[in-house]
Amino acid sequence: MRTVEWIDGKVRMIDQRKLPWELAIVDFDTHEEVASAISEMVIRGAPAIGIAAAFGIAVAANQFAGKRRRSLLQYLKLAAVHLRQARPTAVNLAWAVDRLMTVAADENWQSTDEIRVAVLREAQRLADQDVAVNKQMGRHGAALINDGDTILHHCNTGSLATVEWGTALGVIRMAHDLGKRIHVILDETRPRFQGARLSAWELKQLGIRFDIIADNAAGHFMRTGQVQIVLVGSDRTASNGDVANKIGTYAIAVLAKENGIPFYPVVPTSTIDLTLTTGDDIPIEERSAEEIRAPYGHELVPSDYPARNPAFDITPHQYVTGIVTENGIARPPYTLSLRRAVAGDSLET
Amino acid sequence: MRTVEWIDGKVRMIDQRKLPWELAIVDFDTHEEVASAISEMVIRGAPAIGIAAAFGIAVAANQFAGKRRRSLLQYLKLAAVHLRQARPTAVNLAWAVDRLMTVAADENWQSTDEIRVAVLREAQRLADQDVAVNKQMGRHGAALINDGDTILHHCNTGSLATVEWGTALGVIRMAHDLGKRIHVILDETRPRFQGARLSAWELKQLGIRFDIIADNAAGHFMRTGQVQIVLVGSDRTASNGDVANKIGTYAIAVLAKENGIPFYPVVPTSTIDLTLTTGDDIPIEERSAEEIRAPYGHELVPSDYPARNPAFDITPHQYVTGIVTENGIARPPYTLSLRRAVAGDSLET
Repeated sequence: MRTVEWIDGKVRMIDQRKLPWELAIVDFDTHEEVASAISEMVIRGAPAIGIAAAFGIAVAANQFAGKRRRSLLQYLKLAAVHLRQARPTAVNLAWAVDRLMTVAADENWQSTDEIRVAVLREAQRLADQDVAVNKQMGRHGAALINDGDTILHHCNTGSLATVEWGTALGVIRMAHDLGKRIHVILDETRPRFQGARLSAWELKQLGIRFDIIADNAAGHFMRTGQVQIVLVGSDRTASNGDVANKIGTYAIAVLAKENGIPFYPVVPTSTIDLTLTTGDDIPIEERSAEEIRAPYGHELVPSDYPARNPAFDITPHQYVTGIVTENGIARPPYTLSLRRAVAGDSLET
Repeated sequence: MRTVEWIDGKVRMIDQRKLPWELAIVDFDTHEEVASAISEMVIRGAPAIGIAAAFGIAVAANQFAGKRRRSLLQYLKLAAVHLRQARPTAVNLAWAVDRLMTVAADENWQSTDEIRVAVLREAQRLADQDVAVNKQMGRHGAALINDGDTILHHCNTGSLATVEWGTALGVIRMAHDLGKRIHVILDETRPRFQGARLSAWELKQLGIRFDIIADNAAGHFMRTGQVQIVLVGSDRTASNGDVANKIGTYAIAVLAKENGIPFYPVVPTSTIDLTLTTGDDIPIEERSAEEIRAPYGHELVPSDYPARNPAFDITPHQYVTGIVTENGIARPPYTLSLRRAVAGDSLET
């Protein structure tokens, strides 16, 4: 099954908070539930929450029972506000919702039913496109991986972070499918352990060799020559190549540069925000201190100990070796190459 | 009470695995138990395990009931081997055991009872010296901290890592006692959470303001100007200034340098190993993968997921701004300044 899909008028997701212990499937038939599922991280990963929000608009169109086009559009606008606000950092939420709203507002539709059909069709199209785009990135990125390489990976960027294939983990998967013998070091990714729980679960199923490490140990493995390339995802990339991604990515990028190891974010163009000049304009979500103190209900420290929990950080472009997109690998200067990638130009790989 | 002390013929320790939930006191009256307590991390922190091992020799002297000096010395030699091997990275274990063995072998002693008295006296002296040395480091180091500073700290280097006062956390405590208004960011320090559990527990008691963060977030706080100085401990420092310390220290040092933030290990001269040319000669302990998968019994990931768990890393000296010792602050070139510090010369501060 896909990480997020449309089944019988409902948005079906894997509840990622239960993995790897349980493969729990949840169905939602209101846009409010979809927005909550995104903010509570039933589903996470920039591409996956973008598609979830798209299906959230489709489900909102079904929730509205009326026959007046303008009233439906008003209702969808409210749903769009709600869905966009579910999480602030990943641009894919806004990107997908905007695409759906543009389709909904098309003046060609004669009835609310036509709008319902059109938004669902567009959401399905974005979902299918995500899979295709992931595989294109996989092919471009796999060329960067040599037989015998050990790859350092942060957070989860696999099928669970997307619709089906994966971004950075999709590149790793493609390299494995191409017969390259690889080993993956998975940062466990505190506070929510997406590396240790989700990426490990995926690699185990795919038969790709891996070791989980404490995030603290990534530098040691890099300094001692045990890592050949770093691959990560991105929640939003600014026009200058500054990359917002899961907290801890910045540290890895600095350590990679210091040790002469190439560092590549794998970024569908839907994640590139050309409206932003630099990464400093990207909002950084700060989540509950409980994620630090008591992840998944395991009370590691007392509930009255203060903690800070920024969920993302910014990696300035000078630490980025290249950015893998579905249109090839963007190289510095990113102000030029990312614009070309978004425009659909084929870049060199 | 002290973190480790001699009470009625027994070695008394706080069981640090139970903190911050419970202040459990444990007594040991065999050197085998003391060695196990060190390897299982009932007690941890380079200075603290050095003193624990010293008391381990004293307790071994009591275990041996015979009257022949040579037999007692043979018995102590076996205990010494056992205690030295309890953990490999911190040099304080070997340092303290060697000091005790030198005292035991003194030809002036007329009887096994005199040896017993002498080794206990020496162990007590080393314990008292640890407290005095910590306070000297505190005074030297506190001069580096400005009113209003936020200090980043890794692992635990407080009273629990020493006999009573602390090394890096001892500097922070001294700055606080001197009336400087400070804030501390505590890396939680995966996999064993010494920052979140032990350092937080200590700072709470001392009334020093702090926030716990995921280790992943340290770079973000440094890059965004929220950290003025980094203070850490050390388990062994080579003659060139390369510093072995808790896994994750290397990453912090690189990030500090990249962001123009001073990085100071706080290191009693008992932790400096002049026999080693560089940090690459320091053995790095690799501990059980269970610490990653199921810290303190909290099963975070399944027990069949592979994990790697190096407990320490090496920070090359080029990332080290200065090394705070009880004889002042050693500056580059460390090959000269550390030799002077160990010899007891007063360094500039």
